[in-house]
Amino acid sequence: MTLTTVGLDADDTLWHNETLFRLTHERFVALLAEHGDAESIEGRLLEVERRNLRLYGYGVKGFVLSMVETAMELTAGGDATPVIREILAAGREMLGHPVEPLPGVAEAVAELSDRYRLVLITKGDLIDQERKLAASGLGDFFVAVEIVSEKDAGTYERVFARYGTGAHEAAMVGNSLKSDILPALVAGAFAAHIPYHLTWALEMADAPIDHPRFAELTSISEVPAWLAAIEREAA
Amino acid sequence: MTLTTVGLDADDTLWHNETLFRLTHERFVALLAEHGDAESIEGRLLEVERRNLRLYGYGVKGFVLSMVETAMELTAGGDATPVIREILAAGREMLGHPVEPLPGVAEAVAELSDRYRLVLITKGDLIDQERKLAASGLGDFFVAVEIVSEKDAGTYERVFARYGTGAHEAAMVGNSLKSDILPALVAGAFAAHIPYHLTWALEMADAPIDHPRFAELTSISEVPAWLAAIEREAA
Repeated sequence: MTLTTVGLDADDTLWHNETLFRLTHERFVALLAEHGDAESIEGRLLEVERRNLRLYGYGVKGFVLSMVETAMELTAGGDATPVIREILAAGREMLGHPVEPLPGVAEAVAELSDRYRLVLITKGDLIDQERKLAASGLGDFFVAVEIVSEKDAGTYERVFARYGTGAHEAAMVGNSLKSDILPALVAGAFAAHIPYHLTWALEMADAPIDHPRFAELTSISEVPAWLAAIEREAA
Repeated sequence: MTLTTVGLDADDTLWHNETLFRLTHERFVALLAEHGDAESIEGRLLEVERRNLRLYGYGVKGFVLSMVETAMELTAGGDATPVIREILAAGREMLGHPVEPLPGVAEAVAELSDRYRLVLITKGDLIDQERKLAASGLGDFFVAVEIVSEKDAGTYERVFARYGTGAHEAAMVGNSLKSDILPALVAGAFAAHIPYHLTWALEMADAPIDHPRFAELTSISEVPAWLAAIEREAA
């Protein structure tokens, strides 16, 4: 068979992201250390993030707002102003952080772009994701960039229909089983999971190891050979 | 000539938005009344918003973060926690606010969609704009929704090339001279300005009254006749 289109996730697939969130989490826990241990502070933050997801969506700005809210809950009635000042500063640092492609990414993306239409498919804040793509130097390899509020099967159907020849002739590559892999498989695409060493609690899911269109890879460098094998086998 | 595609702005063109921001501004000024008069508080907030625009982009989340930052500046060293709590609540209310199309919008959009490809082109937070479009009931009239980080000439060129037959056979309709009208004209499209009774300070611009493709209308109900006249005249 012929594959025409490859969707690539951005954060933790093309460049580091969760690492930066974890560092900010550590800073947040340290700022509030007198109000609880790491586990209880993290638990509270996660609860607030989950509650706010429907209103704030994904990305740094919503994360900062959820940290501010959590800090106020934890300091209950006390003066949270100094902590909030640090939280805003941490958010600004995240939004200005330099972006560097993960090892092997630049080569793999260049190689894939010779053979397939590449579409970047990512959640998060519009302006921040655009900034990171520009800073990565990878922008020219993509025929389209789709920054979406949610990654479900309908998202992949729509994107692969618009920029390719439908999900059945497309493959999705990413680090999140929940957002990149499971819904892309439901849409009818192939999907390769490349784990990142950290996963956000709200992105956890089980691997669909028995699905015929699923692959577990260890590096983006393996993607071209995986796709070539699919095209050969089904020819 | 033939026009194939019509771009429509969303906030303050299809539904109220700036009114909601102004109400929140008033609430913000009242919360900080002991730290300055309305003018000085508004001035400080605008300064912070302008400074943060590059990092936060447009939309409610960035606005809330800028209000928090301004509150901390104005209370300089004092306890801003109670004010910040109110600011977060105001932001959540904005993000959950009901959406109702402005007078004449539903009829005009339906009529336009019979004859032209309609594209919604808007700035702001991804998830919030999608929510508002869904709540408006207007979603089915649009062939595409483009939520963009900035509205410049390149944006209009790209969008009208992707979903239509290029900017030369397209028209843009919106309330912001700076974002909807001037860059659309530069891209080569027709553009109709429909003023809203309020304009955000960072969206102010002069009307290009001498431009042959520009029109100043008073209501979206006039758009179908304006477009029909363009098509007749140049036939």
